[in-house]
Amino acid sequence: MDGMATILSGAQERRRIRTGNFTGPTSGLAPGNVQANLVILPRALANDFLRFAMANPKPCPVLAVSEPGSPLFPTLGDGLDIRTDLPLYRVWRNGELVEEPTSVAHVWRDDLVSFAIGCSFSFEEALIEDGIEVRHIACDTNVPMYRTNIPCVPAGVFHGPLVVSMRPLTPARAIRAVQITSRFPSVHGAPVHLGMPEMIGIKDISKPDYGDAVPIHADEMPVFWACGVTPQAVIAQVKPEFCITHAPGSMLITDLRNTSLSAL
Amino acid sequence: MDGMATILSGAQERRRIRTGNFTGPTSGLAPGNVQANLVILPRALANDFLRFAMANPKPCPVLAVSEPGSPLFPTLGDGLDIRTDLPLYRVWRNGELVEEPTSVAHVWRDDLVSFAIGCSFSFEEALIEDGIEVRHIACDTNVPMYRTNIPCVPAGVFHGPLVVSMRPLTPARAIRAVQITSRFPSVHGAPVHLGMPEMIGIKDISKPDYGDAVPIHADEMPVFWACGVTPQAVIAQVKPEFCITHAPGSMLITDLRNTSLSAL
Repeated sequence: MDGMATILSGAQERRRIRTGNFTGPTSGLAPGNVQANLVILPRALANDFLRFAMANPKPCPVLAVSEPGSPLFPTLGDGLDIRTDLPLYRVWRNGELVEEPTSVAHVWRDDLVSFAIGCSFSFEEALIEDGIEVRHIACDTNVPMYRTNIPCVPAGVFHGPLVVSMRPLTPARAIRAVQITSRFPSVHGAPVHLGMPEMIGIKDISKPDYGDAVPIHADEMPVFWACGVTPQAVIAQVKPEFCITHAPGSMLITDLRNTSLSAL
Repeated sequence: MDGMATILSGAQERRRIRTGNFTGPTSGLAPGNVQANLVILPRALANDFLRFAMANPKPCPVLAVSEPGSPLFPTLGDGLDIRTDLPLYRVWRNGELVEEPTSVAHVWRDDLVSFAIGCSFSFEEALIEDGIEVRHIACDTNVPMYRTNIPCVPAGVFHGPLVVSMRPLTPARAIRAVQITSRFPSVHGAPVHLGMPEMIGIKDISKPDYGDAVPIHADEMPVFWACGVTPQAVIAQVKPEFCITHAPGSMLITDLRNTSLSAL
């Protein structure tokens, strides 16, 4: 057997990552398994944040919330320890990035609440399975993301604009992509907009606010989905005294299957 | 009780129509009931036509096919007699419209096969129920329809381009309309195209090939559905020696409920 071709399960990948020997991006690992965005906040802010997420389920689809102080996520993974099982974390103090460690055990506190938030990897897998090219994956770049003029519903200290990700598609594929992603409400669901970027405050589609620009062919239109960068952007705005997130691309690998998130 | 406000059932409307006292359009009658396009062909052509419909289910969604020679449609309506129960028919000989009678009992033949074909009334009701304005209904005009450059799959003598109907919608409502109409595959289902009319061979959106133009606002895009005029157009091309259809707007009222066509 060729070791290069070995496909590991979610639990196996987490064990490998826990040793600190793997710090790379998680894209493509444990294929078919749900990967999630991670946000960890002190309890007081966490309550506001949870209400913000409930009010804005398209950009902030919460897959699971931990018990305060508990590093475990039993509904997401057997033996999953949120302090060690992601390849790379970001530790924030008063809105400043202070550290990018491979474990957060040394900064753990018993008032921390962890949020696993759905990620577009899950619906992109379903698009590709259906034969739809996802441009930034084909280009091997980051998905282009844009701040819009659509305000999120505020809750407590959290407020800010909806951030969207963009994938160019032909009209027929855009219609098919609406159908496919509508089945996945817990990982951003159907697009929020398509065509006409200026209507949602995007002035130059070739200049994303986050990620990389991708080519849009003459027979394609930009299709926009609510993006998991939205909660990260509103948290950054609040500058919480303490916060932990995943490092970009270095996601939480769960035991859930992407297909299990399909509502239909 | 005010007689003007009386809502009749599908069976009651058919009985009223059978007397010949009502020849107007059926839009708005027996609200919530499925209304259908009608095509009646001699048996030999009917076989080809059924294969054409099977190969092109989006423009030709067959709700029911009668037994050859039988005027009954027991799956569509209790006591329904296809010869008398539509307000107005069109009788065609060798492709020429020869008569527009209120009954076709006098031209009935024992080799005739009747097709009830799904109609956009069903999904339009679902759109309106969801709060989505359907422009041609708001304007009280016929839906604009266009011949496209998309060929239907040919079968026997039947071939020709896909005809589409168009409803202008904002991008967010277009996405919602894809979701709603996807639930109704037996009444044209999801749109086939949106935005970019030139891609499907439509040169001037303000000049429909059938029906009436409708205004498209600056924040809207044209959304295109496969249209029941497609089978009528391909039949007209073949010029069958004998054929009966409904007169435009004068549909077959069934006992089925629109909601019962929802696949989900």
